[in-house]
Amino acid sequence: MIAVATAKQIINSLVKTGTITERPILDATGYALAQTVLSPIQFPAFRQSSMDGFAIYFKEREKLLSIQEALPAGTTKTLTIEKGKTIQVYTGSPVPDGADCVVQKEWVNNNGTTIQIQTDHNIQPGDHIRETGSDLEKGSILITAGTVLYPAHIGLLASAGITKVGVIQKPSVAIVITGNELQQPGEPLQFGKVYNSNAFAIQAHLKKMGIEQMVIRYVNDNLADTHKTIAALIEQYDLLIITGGVSVGDFDFVPFACKKAGITEQFHKVKQRPGKPLFFGTRQNKPVFGLPGNPAAVLSCLYQYVIPAIDQMCGICSITTVTARLTSSFNKTIPLTQFLKGYVEKGEVTILPAQASYQLSALGSANCWIELEEAWTTVAAQQEVKIYLFI
Amino acid sequence: MIAVATAKQIINSLVKTGTITERPILDATGYALAQTVLSPIQFPAFRQSSMDGFAIYFKEREKLLSIQEALPAGTTKTLTIEKGKTIQVYTGSPVPDGADCVVQKEWVNNNGTTIQIQTDHNIQPGDHIRETGSDLEKGSILITAGTVLYPAHIGLLASAGITKVGVIQKPSVAIVITGNELQQPGEPLQFGKVYNSNAFAIQAHLKKMGIEQMVIRYVNDNLADTHKTIAALIEQYDLLIITGGVSVGDFDFVPFACKKAGITEQFHKVKQRPGKPLFFGTRQNKPVFGLPGNPAAVLSCLYQYVIPAIDQMCGICSITTVTARLTSSFNKTIPLTQFLKGYVEKGEVTILPAQASYQLSALGSANCWIELEEAWTTVAAQQEVKIYLFI
Repeated sequence: MIAVATAKQIINSLVKTGTITERPILDATGYALAQTVLSPIQFPAFRQSSMDGFAIYFKEREKLLSIQEALPAGTTKTLTIEKGKTIQVYTGSPVPDGADCVVQKEWVNNNGTTIQIQTDHNIQPGDHIRETGSDLEKGSILITAGTVLYPAHIGLLASAGITKVGVIQKPSVAIVITGNELQQPGEPLQFGKVYNSNAFAIQAHLKKMGIEQMVIRYVNDNLADTHKTIAALIEQYDLLIITGGVSVGDFDFVPFACKKAGITEQFHKVKQRPGKPLFFGTRQNKPVFGLPGNPAAVLSCLYQYVIPAIDQMCGICSITTVTARLTSSFNKTIPLTQFLKGYVEKGEVTILPAQASYQLSALGSANCWIELEEAWTTVAAQQEVKIYLFI
Repeated sequence: MIAVATAKQIINSLVKTGTITERPILDATGYALAQTVLSPIQFPAFRQSSMDGFAIYFKEREKLLSIQEALPAGTTKTLTIEKGKTIQVYTGSPVPDGADCVVQKEWVNNNGTTIQIQTDHNIQPGDHIRETGSDLEKGSILITAGTVLYPAHIGLLASAGITKVGVIQKPSVAIVITGNELQQPGEPLQFGKVYNSNAFAIQAHLKKMGIEQMVIRYVNDNLADTHKTIAALIEQYDLLIITGGVSVGDFDFVPFACKKAGITEQFHKVKQRPGKPLFFGTRQNKPVFGLPGNPAAVLSCLYQYVIPAIDQMCGICSITTVTARLTSSFNKTIPLTQFLKGYVEKGEVTILPAQASYQLSALGSANCWIELEEAWTTVAAQQEVKIYLFI
């Protein structure tokens, strides 16, 4: 049995970053950029007016100027201003060649064919002209490799004319649910059965993380079925999550089935509650998590190990970890790292009632996991504790 | 021209919460629960063993007990222990009628047909039995109305056998993009054109918020097209976002087209940069946002007005607002609320270079908007400022 920190180190040292894949920008939010993106164009791409007004030769600002033409935004014409003339422009219009100043229309007396600029304004050369490349030169860095893409980045990429980006692929995940006692939700519960909730909890978390390739398989509590399913899935999927069958009971076939499927055990059992029987193995860098079947253990192991491993594969960070002060003391009686369902608000975290590992009711109001370290015994109110916010 | 706070109040007072819709639990993450969910079953639903071991009559703990039967988890049999006997149970097995104690198998000498409990352990009545309803009574509150569902809630709902929940519907959104200067990304940029990025930035944000019904329409800069499109979309969609055409230029048809389509102007122009020309109207509680075409203005208005309005419709909270200390001073020269692209890390926020409203390069590294209040002038380093984290 190993410590929580050791288990995390082992996983961290064995999990590999995913390969690079190209995705349309609208499907790239939440992905880590695999390569630095350079701007294929300069910003702005042409001299642009930032105002509705008149483009002029600055030295002619005091003259009566005849309106040569109007250049609405979106025009593809290139024009040069003739001497003694002005060209009407709009926000986003190209500034005509020769023009070195745009005067806003409010400062101009305009009779429809000629303009006279009012004399009581401070007009400077370069006014209201966005110079070519003044925001970004062509070939300069748009977004650096490793950046996890926000929706705002998607707009930026589009601004540069980019429609696809190379990102780190998210793993495909197979979920294997063991347990003869499970019954699917939606039907009246038979005596002796419990509803299958782990498949739903795991899927919901993976979906939130943007995992697109997912499969769920149910197996009976026997070695042949368990082995056959695991052996097939480890060939096809990047990561396996198995629930149940991982203790040392008569019906706990998962560790042995994993070994038979060529999965190397990296550790089995962690000094924690809930989730002590956790199994972790690998086959050719593919991580395999054998979680205890208990829904609270599944959830705590998801937050401590599975989600961080997937994050590492993807180059992203899904879970926010912060510290908060406990609102009440807690009598910790077990020499294990303990994870408790908590409710955090404004830096204060409350340990919810009903923490036994089979008790789920606290999940109705919980928004985080609280970590009580292995060595701790009584924990005082106001103690700073590490918390893992629900995703 | 109104203040930012006034604009927010107006929107807040006019936006209505969406109707209730039923969704499969796996599609309910991120939705606000419309009604309190009561548990249709008790937790646990039957007396359950929490150990692999032997169910006994406590008063017979010192006797040699013959093994009557084994009850694996998932069995649907109800059994009563005969006098002088024990029934083998597993984690999750139903505890047989009559049994008032489960002794873990490690504390038992078992020859395959009879067991003798070792005498050097402290055994108590009720050991390792999870009593029926000890976590939740049938009909008690599982999750309260208004809760925004985490993936963990999805597991909890499944545990109770629930497959669908009533949640607050998210709005359908129509996006109208105006601007003859726009060109779609993917093709070489023509002189005088700029790439359409707003459609991508808006879609990416809405997608991240879980908006499923979305349409994009492009219109030419003329009143007839603009009006026709807006009039059609306001009939079919719950919320309209229009970009461009909202200033007072010769090609700015949006406010008039909105009025013609029966949309009541609630305000037009806000004392802010970027985003001053913002238009907001409603028709029969349907919000209509006319954003300036400038991508920086679109983004700042999304975070200040559009996303909060959608959140209000959905009963959710997408944007985290915190305070942070500025890493450097800033000379604020305009008497408007100013939103600046920032990078926040560990409570310190840096104002990025290139803040002019046409400059987008800072979006490559920004992770928040910084708000500088209308009345502020010079802002000192270490000043606490309000920031809006990117979603």
